[in-house]
Amino acid sequence: MSGFYYPRTASGKSAILPPVPWHYSGELITFEYRTDPKAIAALLPEGFELADEDPGAVAAIWADWQSCSDDFNEILDPVRCQYKEMFVVIRCKFQGKHYSRCAFIWVDKDFAIIRGQHQGYPKKLGSIHMSRPVTLGKAGPRLEVGGKFGATLAAYDRRLAEGVFTITGTAEKPGFVNGLPMAHNRWYPAIETNGTDSLSEVVTMSGFDAQMGRCFKGDFELSLFDSPVEELTSLPILEKIGAYWHEVCVSWKAGTTLARKTLPDF
Amino acid sequence: MSGFYYPRTASGKSAILPPVPWHYSGELITFEYRTDPKAIAALLPEGFELADEDPGAVAAIWADWQSCSDDFNEILDPVRCQYKEMFVVIRCKFQGKHYSRCAFIWVDKDFAIIRGQHQGYPKKLGSIHMSRPVTLGKAGPRLEVGGKFGATLAAYDRRLAEGVFTITGTAEKPGFVNGLPMAHNRWYPAIETNGTDSLSEVVTMSGFDAQMGRCFKGDFELSLFDSPVEELTSLPILEKIGAYWHEVCVSWKAGTTLARKTLPDF
Amino acid sequence: MSGFYYPRTASGKSAILPPVPWHYSGELITFEYRTDPKAIAALLPEGFELADEDPGAVAAIWADWQSCSDDFNEILDPVRCQYKEMFVVIRCKFQGKHYSRCAFIWVDKDFAIIRGQHQGYPKKLGSIHMSRPVTLGKAGPRLEVGGKFGATLAAYDRRLAEGVFTITGTAEKPGFVNGLPMAHNRWYPAIETNGTDSLSEVVTMSGFDAQMGRCFKGDFELSLFDSPVEELTSLPILEKIGAYWHEVCVSWKAGTTLARKTLPDF
Amino acid sequence: MSGFYYPRTASGKSAILPPVPWHYSGELITFEYRTDPKAIAALLPEGFELADEDPGAVAAIWADWQSCSDDFNEILDPVRCQYKEMFVVIRCKFQGKHYSRCAFIWVDKDFAIIRGQHQGYPKKLGSIHMSRPVTLGKAGPRLEVGGKFGATLAAYDRRLAEGVFTITGTAEKPGFVNGLPMAHNRWYPAIETNGTDSLSEVVTMSGFDAQMGRCFKGDFELSLFDSPVEELTSLPILEKIGAYWHEVCVSWKAGTTLARKTLPDF
Repeated sequence: MSGFYYPRTASGKSAILPPVPWHYSGELITFEYRTDPKAIAALLPEGFELADEDPGAVAAIWADWQSCSDDFNEILDPVRCQYKEMFVVIRCKFQGKHYSRCAFIWVDKDFAIIRGQHQGYPKKLGSIHMSRPVTLGKAGPRLEVGGKFGATLAAYDRRLAEGVFTITGTAEKPGFVNGLPMAHNRWYPAIETNGTDSLSEVVTMSGFDAQMGRCFKGDFELSLFDSPVEELTSLPILEKIGAYWHEVCVSWKAGTTLARKTLPDF
Repeated sequence: MSGFYYPRTASGKSAILPPVPWHYSGELITFEYRTDPKAIAALLPEGFELADEDPGAVAAIWADWQSCSDDFNEILDPVRCQYKEMFVVIRCKFQGKHYSRCAFIWVDKDFAIIRGQHQGYPKKLGSIHMSRPVTLGKAGPRLEVGGKFGATLAAYDRRLAEGVFTITGTAEKPGFVNGLPMAHNRWYPAIETNGTDSLSEVVTMSGFDAQMGRCFKGDFELSLFDSPVEELTSLPILEKIGAYWHEVCVSWKAGTTLARKTLPDF
Repeated sequence: MSGFYYPRTASGKSAILPPVPWHYSGELITFEYRTDPKAIAALLPEGFELADEDPGAVAAIWADWQSCSDDFNEILDPVRCQYKEMFVVIRCKFQGKHYSRCAFIWVDKDFAIIRGQHQGYPKKLGSIHMSRPVTLGKAGPRLEVGGKFGATLAAYDRRLAEGVFTITGTAEKPGFVNGLPMAHNRWYPAIETNGTDSLSEVVTMSGFDAQMGRCFKGDFELSLFDSPVEELTSLPILEKIGAYWHEVCVSWKAGTTLARKTLPDF
Repeated sequence: MSGFYYPRTASGKSAILPPVPWHYSGELITFEYRTDPKAIAALLPEGFELADEDPGAVAAIWADWQSCSDDFNEILDPVRCQYKEMFVVIRCKFQGKHYSRCAFIWVDKDFAIIRGQHQGYPKKLGSIHMSRPVTLGKAGPRLEVGGKFGATLAAYDRRLAEGVFTITGTAEKPGFVNGLPMAHNRWYPAIETNGTDSLSEVVTMSGFDAQMGRCFKGDFELSLFDSPVEELTSLPILEKIGAYWHEVCVSWKAGTTLARKTLPDF
């Protein structure tokens, strides 16, 4: 059978994910702040600890991506190439090393959900919007001091988060919270649905060929809203750190498994 | 950590799937036909064989569901309760037993995607529509001889399938192709992304407390359309068998693993 | 040129609205309550007065429709046949007669927007959901005492309203606020965009061939939420009147102009 | 009452359109070709004639906009600021002057529909996608020779058009078909729905403060597809003229009525 992910068929033509490497080009708005480290700890599974320094640091990140496989066919069918993402990143320690970790994440296309699952991102579907910079006219911010961006996230008809970012100057890099290799869990509960996982892994990954373009820092406002089925408000903004706009490209092809526990083969 | 599926947190409040059992009530339109058994074989992975009898039988099924968890909270937030589904079912043999098997499937909500992944359904996001019967007026079919239903499926802005069903009488049951326990694969490729699966299972499952309501049979037309990323047209309609409308309820809580192969624990 | 609405072409094939009559079959949930009559008055234009009796009565109505033109072609392409609607109705007096009047309304398909404009409904696009009754299983309410329905409205990623309706018994009719012929304004501002309308009409209309099916009354909860671009919260629930579920069909083909003011012909 | 468009209320807060001027910043991909002038004539109402020169010229244009009102509040709520558009423009002659004219148009937000109606654009809802240029990475075209863009349009789950544009060099301006002031009809059928219009106008308009940024020309492919409710295929590509990518900003505040016919006031 062919096909990286399902459905696997003789041709592999309908597989929801194409083979790696995958390529990404995008713009991101990052809001970094501190919350109560106890709230971070409530998101860390067995084997994970809080980061040694600044354990309560959080990044709420909006991203506007174009992405494609290595034959670039998606670019010419942009509905299969473009997606937006909102994700909340924390830091942690596993087996003595520090990592970034995605706690919550929403995207608006199915290939982005499944790609995320491969990488251990806990992806849900949402409605994500963020301002794009413009070079002409009044209907958008300029990439210069004073340029003002909006960003919103909603899911299931409830607004979950909204932010405003105002450029104050250029920056070397877009914060630090999402700056380490990721450490994620990949769980696949047994179909006996009895609390046991067929597979439980800890994985780490980085992209490659990453390049950063323009990067700006600025002031921000960020609000998180309640939902009966979400926990963003468990990470309240106790102290702002900083916010950034930047453009980036990266490719992805593989990660590394750090730990694995499975049910027996038979 | 709590949470049936991700994200797992201390509270489990934001887990994308609630615990089982899950309950479903819905209406389905089923189109059964025969295609070339070789085309079916091209969809069967290692260990699977064609069904002994009528190996080329296919069911293309549209479903309009309401579903909820065992505390029924989703019912009062219907955006989290309602979804539509289109799936293509074949039959097969595994370890000497006959099963139904879902080859292709689309839904329009994220909880339906992830629930399907748990059960081995290869779920994608699509735009699915089907006529609902009405008891008054002209803007819909009656559940009686002559009642005429439309059903369509699209994904990524391409129409993939459309059918028309016309009631000719009542029926005992809605066909046979989707009538056996399911046998699905659950694959989770290793994050090393090198062609190896961390987990490869064959699973089977049935619902429980299933009840069928009204059931009608009828004539049908069904068209399948090409897409650069789909394979529905690999199962052309060579001979019609029959079509059905029926209402059903079912609950689901567990399946059984038939085979498992994993990478080593460490 | 042919075509009831735009675009008008030689063939009329792409006109966004087909000719009348239009046929509707649907299920509605109605929440009736009283608000401050001054708030109603703030929604009434020149020539309109508050209703003589119960001037503060409001109906917040959710509807799940199938609708079609007189050749019924839309039924077999249900994406062009089905839509949901949420509308807020008040009562008023114009030229000495009492009417119902739609103050705010959202739908989720474009043909429903334009059809509404023809009839003077101030239609916007929204995300509307309501429970459907089921006859089998647990994933929906029964049409009997205790049956419990949810209804929600969102627009631009903000939840605007949500209600819960619980059946307590049968009812003769689904309330009274939406029971009179409608009296609406149809304004078309001049393209000189200087505060003048090219056309300003007051119109009235009713459907024909209306039939009501089952009708239930019950208890309810209803919440309205703020938005920077909406005014639902200007009609707070000061006193509940009653709530209803009912099924209905109706056809529509014409209304009557009650007053007209235009800019000069040239 | 306040409110530029509906609903008009004492506050005007919920009016679907804010007051003018409206500001736009965007990127456009334009495909110009020739079709049979008879096909153009079939789209021209009474009083309109074919253009004297190149009467069969057509532009199929995709646009990715941010737009806002004069207080810029929409920019920070980007879901209310961003929309995409696909429109087909022809040329014509009215009262001896040459104009551009929009024959068909789709957008994906309701404010864009209503704004279009004000300006006589025959707007429908569609799903519109187009590649965005990138400065980093592989997941998008560069604004340089060889940069390759895709553009698609779908409505009601049918793909209606798709194009590919490949940059060959810079250009002075993005074609000519959409380069004249627009001449549109604004029709509002009487609610008596008997074939008479309450209002029938011919209007013209231009934006102001328009600025063009970078502009590129290139080669293209363009395909138009059938739909039971569309007529794009009535304008087949008989001969390509040229294609362009460009960025632009413009503001809009008013047009001019060229002719008006109304039913009597009363």
